[in-house]
Amino acid sequence: MRYSQILIPTLKEDPAEAEVVSHRLLLRAGSIRKLTAGVYTYLPYGLAAIRRVENIVREEMNRAGAQEVLMPMVQPADLWQESGRYEKYGPELLRFRDRHERESCLGPTHEEVITDIARRELHSYRDLPVNLYQIQTKFRDEIRPRFGLMRGREFIMKDAYSFDTDDAGAEQSYRKMHEAYTRIFTRCGLEFRCVEADSGAIGGSFSHEFMVLAATGEDTIAVCTACDWAANLEKAAVKLGPQPAAVDPLPLVKVETPGMKKVETVCEFLGVEPERLVKTMVYLADGVPVAVLLRGDRELEEVKLKNYLRAKDIRMAQDQEVFDATGVPVGYLGPVGLSLRLLADQEVMRVANAIVGANEKNFHLQNVNPGRDFQVAEVADFRQICASDPCPSCGGALRLVEGIEVGHIFKLGTAYSEAMNARFQDQQGNDRPLIMGCYGIGVSRVVAAAIEQNHDANGIIFPVPLAPYPVTILNLGNKDEAITAVAEQLYTQLQEAGIDAFLDDRDERPGSKFKDADLLGFPFRITVGKRYAESGMVELRRRRDGFTEEVEVAGLVELVRQRLNEESAGR
Amino acid sequence: MRYSQILIPTLKEDPAEAEVVSHRLLLRAGSIRKLTAGVYTYLPYGLAAIRRVENIVREEMNRAGAQEVLMPMVQPADLWQESGRYEKYGPELLRFRDRHERESCLGPTHEEVITDIARRELHSYRDLPVNLYQIQTKFRDEIRPRFGLMRGREFIMKDAYSFDTDDAGAEQSYRKMHEAYTRIFTRCGLEFRCVEADSGAIGGSFSHEFMVLAATGEDTIAVCTACDWAANLEKAAVKLGPQPAAVDPLPLVKVETPGMKKVETVCEFLGVEPERLVKTMVYLADGVPVAVLLRGDRELEEVKLKNYLRAKDIRMAQDQEVFDATGVPVGYLGPVGLSLRLLADQEVMRVANAIVGANEKNFHLQNVNPGRDFQVAEVADFRQICASDPCPSCGGALRLVEGIEVGHIFKLGTAYSEAMNARFQDQQGNDRPLIMGCYGIGVSRVVAAAIEQNHDANGIIFPVPLAPYPVTILNLGNKDEAITAVAEQLYTQLQEAGIDAFLDDRDERPGSKFKDADLLGFPFRITVGKRYAESGMVELRRRRDGFTEEVEVAGLVELVRQRLNEESAGR
Repeated sequence: MRYSQILIPTLKEDPAEAEVVSHRLLLRAGSIRKLTAGVYTYLPYGLAAIRRVENIVREEMNRAGAQEVLMPMVQPADLWQESGRYEKYGPELLRFRDRHERESCLGPTHEEVITDIARRELHSYRDLPVNLYQIQTKFRDEIRPRFGLMRGREFIMKDAYSFDTDDAGAEQSYRKMHEAYTRIFTRCGLEFRCVEADSGAIGGSFSHEFMVLAATGEDTIAVCTACDWAANLEKAAVKLGPQPAAVDPLPLVKVETPGMKKVETVCEFLGVEPERLVKTMVYLADGVPVAVLLRGDRELEEVKLKNYLRAKDIRMAQDQEVFDATGVPVGYLGPVGLSLRLLADQEVMRVANAIVGANEKNFHLQNVNPGRDFQVAEVADFRQICASDPCPSCGGALRLVEGIEVGHIFKLGTAYSEAMNARFQDQQGNDRPLIMGCYGIGVSRVVAAAIEQNHDANGIIFPVPLAPYPVTILNLGNKDEAITAVAEQLYTQLQEAGIDAFLDDRDERPGSKFKDADLLGFPFRITVGKRYAESGMVELRRRRDGFTEEVEVAGLVELVRQRLNEESAGR
Repeated sequence: MRYSQILIPTLKEDPAEAEVVSHRLLLRAGSIRKLTAGVYTYLPYGLAAIRRVENIVREEMNRAGAQEVLMPMVQPADLWQESGRYEKYGPELLRFRDRHERESCLGPTHEEVITDIARRELHSYRDLPVNLYQIQTKFRDEIRPRFGLMRGREFIMKDAYSFDTDDAGAEQSYRKMHEAYTRIFTRCGLEFRCVEADSGAIGGSFSHEFMVLAATGEDTIAVCTACDWAANLEKAAVKLGPQPAAVDPLPLVKVETPGMKKVETVCEFLGVEPERLVKTMVYLADGVPVAVLLRGDRELEEVKLKNYLRAKDIRMAQDQEVFDATGVPVGYLGPVGLSLRLLADQEVMRVANAIVGANEKNFHLQNVNPGRDFQVAEVADFRQICASDPCPSCGGALRLVEGIEVGHIFKLGTAYSEAMNARFQDQQGNDRPLIMGCYGIGVSRVVAAAIEQNHDANGIIFPVPLAPYPVTILNLGNKDEAITAVAEQLYTQLQEAGIDAFLDDRDERPGSKFKDADLLGFPFRITVGKRYAESGMVELRRRRDGFTEEVEVAGLVELVRQRLNEESAGR
């Protein structure tokens, strides 16, 4: 592609609307333009990057035996009423009436449509397993769309749906997608982790998220520095370190702590570390109060509590609700003598001679010991994992990092097939619900995530597999026949060698050409300029680290190929 | 692709919902399924045919220097208000409010969005010309969607938009698209004509339609049997044959024609042919009555009249309106002494000794001669062309055929750029509006049109370039190791030769396999069956005409390649 033949309206200044790096650089690199909140046009350069992702996704989905289909964007409301999601989904589901007053919506996801197809077309175990996918524009009416392609309202998604006869088959379909996703993000040249995740609104039995690691992620994940283990904070199981040495229990003491309701204040007053304090938190689980014990230096992980309680909805009780449930003002609650369903984080059972609230205003208890001073029947893992915890898998050191969710796979089970009556006949002639899985990749988001992970102060640094053009040639002598001839010759030779080269043939100053090449993030840059006229040499430069080689024109195509292969292999 | 690995739910019976061949066959061939009125899911086999079209379109658009972009499907209403189309477009434009009550619509076409991009990004003559295109799902809320992919509400379209500095440039952009479209439909293997067309609701200076010829087209077009000329009926200029021999004018006679209001009745009564009668029709052009003279055997072409009058709206006057305007009851109108603006079709001037109404109930005039008996200032081509007319270009014989519009190119001029203030600075520093063109192809409709043109009683006959798989191998001996081995071997060899082969490896009776192969329309079929076991021969059959060859396995791949090339070249 010649720069003179493609519309890449680069911006010299940072646009005010952009809050994150990928949004800013995609705008500056003339790759996207906002039409309205969360809705973007992909200009030629941005679309080319998206197509690179699409192609990798399509190849790997096909390789995994999935079949490409294309479902409609406009969907009838009645299917969503059947699944029960028309009420549940909330205002992100954009609803409207067509000219005949039929209730309709714009597809934010396609479980209903695919289940409708399945119940009409898949009748027998002989038709199964099937995995159908599409690459399609979705619409979710986010209340606060932001960050450009990271959280838009209209976006490109690959969504796949598997149908199996039994759980073992469904798990194999799930595993195949897990493998396909791993290959996809590896081929994209991204550093990522697969983490166990909560299933959230989609429902179903279990799920994994694929997270691209980047400083500006929306989610925090825990990753092991020694092994492969990684997990979403809400799902990361805490593995306790070795049992601490036994400590002699001391006699229980009641102390006056006037006006001291906070962990820090009480600890400072009593001269102990927060890990010696056990805090008592009251939550409402579907409206019913429960108390949870947690070490003073820890954070509760609400998703763990919610899942343990199998509650639809949990929230921390407000002060008055705590008082109504316990008769004790907030700040002085404790497990000794508390008449409320009592849960304890596993770590609490190891705290010896603890500080707790005395269930009396302005008083705490010292030297409290579980078992001796209070009983708790329900002990589990309720807290958020920390960087100081050991890896639950190998015991190695953990790191908490930011991640951008680019893929999510779900084992759905029979939630949709039961609700929508999608059944098949098994080998014995029995009528049974289809077992489903669903698998999403945010195609446009992958491009944004790639930029969040790969950029510097000068612009994008595209991983080779996602680069619209892996190499650009800067002709620094548009007026010089010899320089222009060799730039054109290299452009032709690279294309003939199957390398999708870019040629900056514009009548611009060298400074602009260098700046734009950096901004656009070509992985390699060939400069043909004065030095060629003097010595017959051109320059090959790697964007990622600035590694630069002076080379003769003769062997350049081969060298470019070699460097591109190294880049792809090195990731 | 193996039949066992792809979901193609073929139907044995004709579905009741299908009115036209392509709709029926796409349903029966398990290629599409209706979700709701005019909205279809593309199943794997149907989508594969669409992708073939997309690839040809993309290659030819790129070759013509157009750049691919992707614009949003959800558009803000304010852009449509700027262009003035929010009011004009009617209920086909699906409008809704998002969660923040912003008025929005689903894009039926993208002139507004692209003009908005152009005014923000194209500032100078140095940025021009530019042609931007996308392949995208559109939504038009048709009141009566029908015929499957022929007139859906949601459909896949390629739309392109060109921007030029002046008319000469715009016409060159137009010509490039004309050539690209000709290449596209030729490469698709379709018999088509390019016809001059009316610009309709899109507006602009001139336009051409690309019509695929098929018995079930929605439009009639006139084509020359001798040269390239073709035109939409509404645009086809009538070229009169040689001037007939002069006839002596006879004296004017008034005859009583009691109750005879129709051309046929009057002619029969007077014993003359309808071509001797001149009928007088009254139309309301934007509410103002005008009279039009036409030979008795001809049909008025309303679009020609409307364009001549530069009227926004024309319609035939009702009986009472005719009487109010002329004082004469319908059936007895004539040009002699009529006090109304009078227009005549050019052919009327050649009728000697004509019959006309006498402007008096129950009377006609005989031997009326233009010039002698009445004057008419406005003479033009107002009638529909007929099969008996000579070709306006070469004088050859015409044929009226049915056509399906698959492409439409428009020279838009400055309609949108003026309304939306999309201006650039020319070489002299003057601020001028961009000159636009727009160019559409109904991608999903091309597949339907291809089937309308290429099918028989047994099913689809895909042109090779659009066939999802150009050749299928029927393994008629699933239980026979030798037969299965050779079928599998051929499948591998064809794929290795770069031919996208299909293998019917299902455990089905031969009859079903033959039927499905015909229904799905593979251009070539290889049968490996009993005959192979007996003589080592397999059968190669061409779907189009049933031409069958018995061949040895050894040379089959080469023969298939040769036959495929012949098919592609022969079109």
